[in-house]
Amino acid sequence: MQAGLAASPFEKLLLQKIHRSIGQAPIRLGFSGGEFLPSDCAGTESVVIHDLRALARMVLDPELGFGDAYAQGRIEVKGDLVHTLEVVFRAMHKVGKRSWYYRLFSGWLQRVQANTLDGSASNIHSHYDLNEEFYKLWLDSRLVYTCAYFPTPSATLEESQLAKMEHVCRKVRLQPGEKVVDAGCGWGALALHMARHYGVSVKAFNISREQIQYARRQAAREGLAGQVEFIEDDYRNISGRFDAFVSVGMLEHVGREHYSELGKIIHRAIGDSGRGLIHFIGRNRPEPFSAWIRKRIFPGAYCPALREAMDIFEPHEYAVLDVENLRLHYAKTLEHWLARYERSVERVSALFGPEFVRAWRLYLAGSIASFRTGLLQLFQIVFAGSACQQIPWTRAHLYAGEERVEKECRWTRAAS
Amino acid sequence: MQAGLAASPFEKLLLQKIHRSIGQAPIRLGFSGGEFLPSDCAGTESVVIHDLRALARMVLDPELGFGDAYAQGRIEVKGDLVHTLEVVFRAMHKVGKRSWYYRLFSGWLQRVQANTLDGSASNIHSHYDLNEEFYKLWLDSRLVYTCAYFPTPSATLEESQLAKMEHVCRKVRLQPGEKVVDAGCGWGALALHMARHYGVSVKAFNISREQIQYARRQAAREGLAGQVEFIEDDYRNISGRFDAFVSVGMLEHVGREHYSELGKIIHRAIGDSGRGLIHFIGRNRPEPFSAWIRKRIFPGAYCPALREAMDIFEPHEYAVLDVENLRLHYAKTLEHWLARYERSVERVSALFGPEFVRAWRLYLAGSIASFRTGLLQLFQIVFAGSACQQIPWTRAHLYAGEERVEKECRWTRAAS
Repeated sequence: MQAGLAASPFEKLLLQKIHRSIGQAPIRLGFSGGEFLPSDCAGTESVVIHDLRALARMVLDPELGFGDAYAQGRIEVKGDLVHTLEVVFRAMHKVGKRSWYYRLFSGWLQRVQANTLDGSASNIHSHYDLNEEFYKLWLDSRLVYTCAYFPTPSATLEESQLAKMEHVCRKVRLQPGEKVVDAGCGWGALALHMARHYGVSVKAFNISREQIQYARRQAAREGLAGQVEFIEDDYRNISGRFDAFVSVGMLEHVGREHYSELGKIIHRAIGDSGRGLIHFIGRNRPEPFSAWIRKRIFPGAYCPALREAMDIFEPHEYAVLDVENLRLHYAKTLEHWLARYERSVERVSALFGPEFVRAWRLYLAGSIASFRTGLLQLFQIVFAGSACQQIPWTRAHLYAGEERVEKECRWTRAAS
Repeated sequence: MQAGLAASPFEKLLLQKIHRSIGQAPIRLGFSGGEFLPSDCAGTESVVIHDLRALARMVLDPELGFGDAYAQGRIEVKGDLVHTLEVVFRAMHKVGKRSWYYRLFSGWLQRVQANTLDGSASNIHSHYDLNEEFYKLWLDSRLVYTCAYFPTPSATLEESQLAKMEHVCRKVRLQPGEKVVDAGCGWGALALHMARHYGVSVKAFNISREQIQYARRQAAREGLAGQVEFIEDDYRNISGRFDAFVSVGMLEHVGREHYSELGKIIHRAIGDSGRGLIHFIGRNRPEPFSAWIRKRIFPGAYCPALREAMDIFEPHEYAVLDVENLRLHYAKTLEHWLARYERSVERVSALFGPEFVRAWRLYLAGSIASFRTGLLQLFQIVFAGSACQQIPWTRAHLYAGEERVEKECRWTRAAS
């Protein structure tokens, strides 16, 4: 392609085909320095394709073409990336699900989604081996890598990760002296919060050695090592009896076929008298994984519809007490992460190179667009056994002031 | 059986078999004037069987035996009926689901449940033809025949039915001028509340002529006839476009096999931009109906597990925003109903006879026990389409004071 040249009839045909497939979203498509279609587009954003190979790959291999080409810089988005993706997702919703372009995007969504969740595949596994420095660049100070809860849209990320932990603790009505199991504990912030503020003892499980080591150092630093035990092990090896089961952001790793097994493990841990909370990225209906992605990229990661999550609860007659959909809060969380990430791009590029920078930008931006448009949901499910005595009368106690969060945020700001 | 005689070995065997089947609940079983088993029972309640035929029917035809014999006065419960049933349900939970006695109770539960819901079967249809006088004896002044919402356990029934209507209106965030469809509107209280307090226009559907006529009179009396249209028709005939869909206590009538049809009707009414709320009696997992009951007594009535209710939402990619389980509130509602009912027993007996009195007592008491023990659940599901602009940021607005309820209750008390 030469700059300024009109697209050839064949190129035009391809561009038009893509544009129709994305529901004629109000963005323009074209080659760098060349013609952009549609010429009468009302939107201000455009997708710039730098070479024919990128276009060809998008057509021939939709499940990978766009993401790879974007990461490699062979496709660029002029204008706001998040808004562009959002506009495309909304327009695509109107066209049939069978189009190859839909598969491109849903495959890509699965990919970037799984990207954050499953460390077992080779090329993404490296993201999990990234040192703490990387995550410290753009997560909050407690390194909470799950959806926050914003009491108001203008709350800070620090406040909102704290508010999320409070929201979770209130939902399960923790009482001093109780035993809690935290399945998939990340860097340990929630386990430490429960111990510090609710006087419970916690066993927290995680298969990531780096995260467990970090969490143990934090526990020691905060004088909570006697109250919180961080265990480097799979959730399937949870043993002992507990009053409550909490899992934030692990279900996406568990895999569709293991939900009834997870239910058994929960029942072994808390029996009929316990209660619990599971927080996970879900969908409005079951969506099959791209076969290619299942096989080659991220085996095992899956975001379930509510129907599917019931496999955990039904066999043990656990009553679902409360389901809250926090998808707008995940969009907001990701906006904070992306803004912090952009401020650290120079350092990220020095660490991992420009392709990595673009890939993660696309992942964060695409996730924002997915939660905004409802391609993804964020569910918190509270459940209780048939003999549970801790069923709250109403949910009003969840909204009875945010004093603890405000207090600790003041403390955090003073300390930092 | 002669008074004071010991039970025969065969009778003892039957009594022991029943007692084992109900998980050796701490109640005693025996014949009137005869021996009661077990002799070392710690509980204070007992089930008195007045004749061998009642016992034989319970064994031979468990799905009907207990309920019929109780209604006919051939079985009595000495002590608190609700507590006795509760104790039995809890103990039964520990024994296998395959026992014939479990089927007795679950069949009975389905029966009395359906009893309240499905007017199509002959002998129960007569309950729906009961005049307003009967329901006015024990429902609240607005004749709301669904689960109330008690801001505190000590709130009155009047306050709590108002609070339920407020809770529903807040959950769907009604705005002045919007159009709402109310599917299965009962005597019309919710439709009138929405119009009066939220300035919306409502089309309310119900197949019961008596209820629709009552609701129309109420609308005229309150000057709301221009704002609320009560339509004597099936939900399947809902036509027109609306901003919100509300249905309280209708899903139990719809029948398992019609959920996807209901979803289509909702989508036709509110499209992708609307939102809605469905309030229904549910279960912790799908439970098959007794074949006998499906065929002979109450065709069509069914209380779904959450998994099953997803058939309504998934095909249209409706996002589930909020699920609240209010089963303890239904137990409390039924306690109020039962207490009012007992105060009116003389009049009920004069209207319908003593067998009717006992049958309804058993139905109300058994329902209390079912909601207390978790055999039944009460779910409110809030959902929204992919283009809905009314998604609340948090649920805090649901708990932001009960001024309207308090004000109207003062008004109600002043008027009465």
